[in-house]
Amino acid sequence: MAGIRHLVMAKFKEGAPVEQLVLDMKKLALELDIIKSFEWGEDVMKNEKYSHGFTHVFILTFDSAEDVAAYINHPLHVEYAKKFRAGIEKILAVDFPTAIDKIN
Amino acid sequence: MAGIRHLVMAKFKEGAPVEQLVLDMKKLALELDIIKSFEWGEDVMKNEKYSHGFTHVFILTFDSAEDVAAYINHPLHVEYAKKFRAGIEKILAVDFPTAIDKIN
Repeated sequence: MAGIRHLVMAKFKEGAPVEQLVLDMKKLALELDIIKSFEWGEDVMKNEKYSHGFTHVFILTFDSAEDVAAYINHPLHVEYAKKFRAGIEKILAVDFPTAIDKIN
Repeated sequence: MAGIRHLVMAKFKEGAPVEQLVLDMKKLALELDIIKSFEWGEDVMKNEKYSHGFTHVFILTFDSAEDVAAYINHPLHVEYAKKFRAGIEKILAVDFPTAIDKIN
């Protein structure tokens, strides 16, 4: 579970097909071998001051920054990204080599 | 590794003792049994458009929302939070029950 995390947060547009977009991202994650793990969730704190309006978190794990780049440019991701972007009001994304200091 | 994730992103002030703050958060995570896992990392994409200026990600995992609340109110966290807040320019935080759909 080490590696580099590609973390995306989204605020979706009113009426966006959120469930379908999440399902399609899951399918993409299962289909592409360079994606080592995939998890996501919806904020339950719902405190705008802290969330900055972002409601969903998606975390994909890769072995390397090169694999993240390969994913970003992969035709399946490019196709998916079009649909995702059409549904979002704003996005946040960071890539970070993860330091795991406690694990259960 | 399921459970609820308490995800914090930070943009630190110029000159903030970032290494010490990270080290102290790690110590806190190792000290408190309700924290089931702790990981963190620094953004390497460095694209302001996507990062919104946030440079660091911290992810703590708990068994339940009640445990997150107990952590937030724990004296050791309250003490730590004062130092953390003094060092940051802005913060983002969300809590999400994690759906893990792919794991390696």
